[in-house]
Order: sequence, then C-alpha cells, then structure tokens
Amino acid sequence: MRATTIHAPRDIRLGEEPDPVLSAPTDAIVKVVAGCVCGSDLWPYRGENVIDPGSTIGHECVGVVEEVGSEVRSFAPGDFVVVPFCHCDNTCVHCRAGVQSACARQGFTASGQAEYTRVNQAEGSLVKTDGMPDDDLVPSLLALSDVMATGWHAAVSAGVRPGSTTVVVGDGAVGLCGVLAASQLGAERVVAMSRHQPRQELARRFGATDVVAARGEEGEAAVAEITGGVGADAVLECVGTDAAVRTAFAVARPGSTVGFVGVPHGVELPVRRMFQKNVGLAGGMAPVRRYLPDLMERVVSGAIEPGLVFDLELPLSDVAEAYRAMDERRAIKALLRP
Amino acid sequence: MRATTIHAPRDIRLGEEPDPVLSAPTDAIVKVVAGCVCGSDLWPYRGENVIDPGSTIGHECVGVVEEVGSEVRSFAPGDFVVVPFCHCDNTCVHCRAGVQSACARQGFTASGQAEYTRVNQAEGSLVKTDGMPDDDLVPSLLALSDVMATGWHAAVSAGVRPGSTTVVVGDGAVGLCGVLAASQLGAERVVAMSRHQPRQELARRFGATDVVAARGEEGEAAVAEITGGVGADAVLECVGTDAAVRTAFAVARPGSTVGFVGVPHGVELPVRRMFQKNVGLAGGMAPVRRYLPDLMERVVSGAIEPGLVFDLELPLSDVAEAYRAMDERRAIKALLRP
Repeated sequence: MRATTIHAPRDIRLGEEPDPVLSAPTDAIVKVVAGCVCGSDLWPYRGENVIDPGSTIGHECVGVVEEVGSEVRSFAPGDFVVVPFCHCDNTCVHCRAGVQSACARQGFTASGQAEYTRVNQAEGSLVKTDGMPDDDLVPSLLALSDVMATGWHAAVSAGVRPGSTTVVVGDGAVGLCGVLAASQLGAERVVAMSRHQPRQELARRFGATDVVAARGEEGEAAVAEITGGVGADAVLECVGTDAAVRTAFAVARPGSTVGFVGVPHGVELPVRRMFQKNVGLAGGMAPVRRYLPDLMERVVSGAIEPGLVFDLELPLSDVAEAYRAMDERRAIKALLRP
Repeated sequence: MRATTIHAPRDIRLGEEPDPVLSAPTDAIVKVVAGCVCGSDLWPYRGENVIDPGSTIGHECVGVVEEVGSEVRSFAPGDFVVVPFCHCDNTCVHCRAGVQSACARQGFTASGQAEYTRVNQAEGSLVKTDGMPDDDLVPSLLALSDVMATGWHAAVSAGVRPGSTTVVVGDGAVGLCGVLAASQLGAERVVAMSRHQPRQELARRFGATDVVAARGEEGEAAVAEITGGVGADAVLECVGTDAAVRTAFAVARPGSTVGFVGVPHGVELPVRRMFQKNVGLAGGMAPVRRYLPDLMERVVSGAIEPGLVFDLELPLSDVAEAYRAMDERRAIKALLRP
C-alpha cells in the first residue's frame, strides 16, 4: 500500500509499505477513506521528538472495514467506522472507569496517513455509522478520531459547567475543538486566546464569545478584565508548552481546574502557584472511545461540525505539503484522501 | 503577653510580646486555650524556609473571645471558638465558591503559640461551640483549626468516594487525619503508608485497613498488590516532598486524582506521567472554614476524635521542647497550653 513515513526532521515521504495484516483475532483492517495530520505529528516533524527513520506516521483516520479477525463480531467488511487513535478493549477495569486511553490492551493507529490501517481490539475501539455517511460528513467524522475527542476531553477534565466562564489556551485544531466542546457543555462565556484571524473566526463560529489576541501577562490581564478579576471557572490547556501552561494557571480562578490535553514538552508545572490558588490539573491522553458515541450523534444530527477545522484538503500524494502547511501555520489542519 | 518567636533555625523562644489589639472593626482578639506546633512550622525550624528573626510563630489555636470589633456581631467575649489558621470573610466570590483560603480579605493567625491572638475577619472566620466544651474535647477542637481540616481537604480534593480504595502518603498528623477523613467519607479500603509503629497504630484506629511500611518502588509494589494491579481510586499526598509526590502518582490508578495538601518543597510534578495516566492533581491550602461546621459536629457527636494526633502535651513555657520532639519524630504533634 501507499503509506506516509518519516525519515528525519521535515523529511516526510509517501512510499510503498507492506499492507497491514490481521495479527490477532481481535484485529481489523480498515481501508482509509480520510486521514489527517495531527498537531502532535509536528513534534517529530520539527525534530523535537525522537524519530525512528522510515517508520509510518499518522494516527487519525476514518474508513471502511476491509477484514476482521475471528473475535470481532460487531463489525463486518463494508462498515464505515471512526478509528480512535488509541485502541482499547472497552471492557478492562480502566476502560470501565472511562479511561480507555489507559486500556490494559492499549494499541495505537500506526498508519492513518495511508491506504490501510490495522486496528487492535477492533470490537472495543471502533464505532460505525448507520450506513455509508454523506461525503460532507466525512471531515467531521474524521475529527472524532482524535482532535474533537481531545478538545472534548479538555473541557470535561476542566469541569466545564453550564453558565461558566471558560478560557481556552491554544488556537490549534484541538483548542478550537475545545471551544466547541465548552460551548456544547453549556459555558456561557468562552474566551479563545488566539492571535490568528482565521482561527479567531472559526473560534467564534464554534461558540467563542470573546477573543484575546494578547499573550503572556498582557493576555492574562485581558482575561482578568473579562472575568471581573475573579479568573476563569475552567481553563483548557491545548498546547503543551511551558508558556501555555503558565498562562492557563494564571487565568484560572481559585478552586478551578486546568484541563490539559497538549502533550507536554518542556513543561514545569507551577506547583507552588497551584497550591496557593487551589488550582488543579486534570486530563491527559484522551479516552476517545468514551466520548465517541455521543460525539458521533452530535455530528450526524448536525449539532456540531468539527470538520471545519480542516481548512486544507489534499490527496495523500501531497502529504509532505500538508505537513509544511501546518508547520508554517498556513493551514489549521490538513485532511488527506488516499 | 507571652508568645513564641523564632530567631534562627532551631532557635525557638518564649518571651514577652505586645498584646495583639483590634486593628480593624472586623477583628477579634482571642485568649488562647490551646495551641500547637504544625508540621509546616518545622520548615523554618529546620532552616528550609526564610526566617524573619524575632517574628511570632504558630497558626493553630482554639480559645475564648476576649474582645471584638464593632462589626463583629455573631461573637462576644466569653465564646469558645475554633480559629481557622487562614481567616476569611466567608462572603467574597472565592469564599462562596468554597475556597475560603483564597479569600479576597485573607488573613492568617500569627500568634497561635501564645496567650492571645488576633483574628481578622472574625465574623467570617470563627466558629463557636455551644457553650464551653469539656476539656477532653479541646484537643479535637484544636485539630480543626488546621490539621484535621487539611487532611479532610486532601480527601475531598482527591475525590474519595464510598467504597473506594484510598492511599494516604505521609504519616504525619495531616496524613493521619487524611486517613480519618477518607474513612469518614466512606472509603472501603484505606492504605496508610507509614514506617513508624505508633503512627501505624493511630492510622488503624483512624480507619486504615492496610499499612504499607515500605517506601519507594517497594512501597509502590505493595500498593499495586493491594489494589490488584489497578492502583488506588484516590491518593492523598500529605508530605510535600518530591519523593512523596512521586509515590503518590505512582500508586494512583489512571483517571484518579492526587489530593495534595503538603506545602510543596522541591517538588517537580511528573507531568508526563500525569498526562499518560490521566492522573490529576487537586488541593492546596485548606479552606478550613468551609469544613469547620461539619467537622465540629462530628467532633462534638464523638464521630471523630482527631485530637488523638496530639501525643505530647506541654505547657507553653516548654514550646522549644515541643519543636524538638516533633523535629526528632519523638512526637506526632505537640499541644501547648498557655
């Protein structure tokens, strides 16, 4: 099959790789209908994560079931499915506690930017649509494989409640989905911290009531003014850098929680400040499967359209350009069609 | 009045200080019936916090109201009161959110190891008993001014629920009160991590079902065995050192929360581990006033006896020995009578 591989920083290639095969009776093979580039793919792309040269990359996709193992009963070839980036059996003690991302049989999508991908624990991981979805639903369904579920996890972890004031730090696709999640969960005011006009516009479309373009202390002062000096009831940290984390804790009101979903890079948590203000931290790798049925219903009913984060669509053959566009922030998020 | 002052590491003195006076119409002066030494007093005692030489020390006490300012309506001379170590108006936006330790008019008890102390925001801070309590209730009432409320805050912050398995890291007086809190909040299994036999015994009396004496990886393995490899549903971190924090996160199950109340000293939070395991952190300086009415009811009814943490009682004149005994771990916690 054709699949995307990474060889060195900024060296992304589409080449021929062996087709994935069933390695266990709980596996399924999915023919990818659409994949995409994740903000976290940019860490190795920028040389900030270790690279295993020649390894496949890409963990977000939707597609059609091609083949299932003998223990997979709920799915059959032809089903259109969302593939959570982290696979789970959805029955273990951690899954039952709603932490499917810590499943005892955890697996990951390894070739989401490719023609085919293997799903471990297909029975517990996959969620299928009712028949073949309209093509215009595909981007929003694709968003459920990671980015929208991750933004949702940030909002749930931060304890967003109806009527609350929520601040979202980060205007990447995850942050924008965090805005949408906070809005869906009933936040009355949603403050998007964003400097980039196209992202500000999408944030407003997703339900942001306020946009703060300033960063650092100036940005914190702007949030303080919006919240009447009290601070935010809930804060979503959707970046993963130390500066973003500091901003998140600075704008959080005493007793609130920062929900974090950006993979931390060089983050030193301000433990003294957390202690003095009684501001907690919760979140981590999103248990996508936990939220998937609910989110799929919202997408199919038209309540949410997270696929709007894809402002660039390219054929899989242009995957290197997809990375470049996101790296240079010319695109919020790039969708790829094999 | 006679009051305790600190002059240098291990230099604790009882001497003459000016009597505290009403400095605002919201103040009260309390004649101390009993005070005590806090684990956090040992940080400056050991030279690990900056010392302002000659300053008074001690922030836990109960006593009898001596004098009140013109705006204090609910208290009168002769009332027996518990003095929360952090003072609050109990009406500001943070107090109403249950974070009285972040009150907009925050104050602190400055001379709890003395004959008199001033309470800022007396109306919002103090809670009185119904008449003069029996002398044998005094230790337990004194414990409510900080240590028991702090242990309770750890348990609440960690989200201890009925039927859960809770691990308490730290066998100081706060940790022991955390055991008592977890037990009161319905934890089915309460694991006390404690190496010291008298503390283990008190932990069991407070409701610990299991005691783990080992520390570090060995201790973590013991908890893993107790929890069937799953990890604890809730963890109370009651020390504040880096090693204790690491143990707390190591024994927490995915999706759980570490409740922390030990003032952090040299702590580097394991942010990657927190992210991967989805283990949150919550807590901080305890909002004593929030819990005080409920805890007082439990003490008066005999449901809890947190005063058992005081295994040493001395006259105030022996305050230096009280510090020594706690520093050398000869005493869990020392009560002082002026």
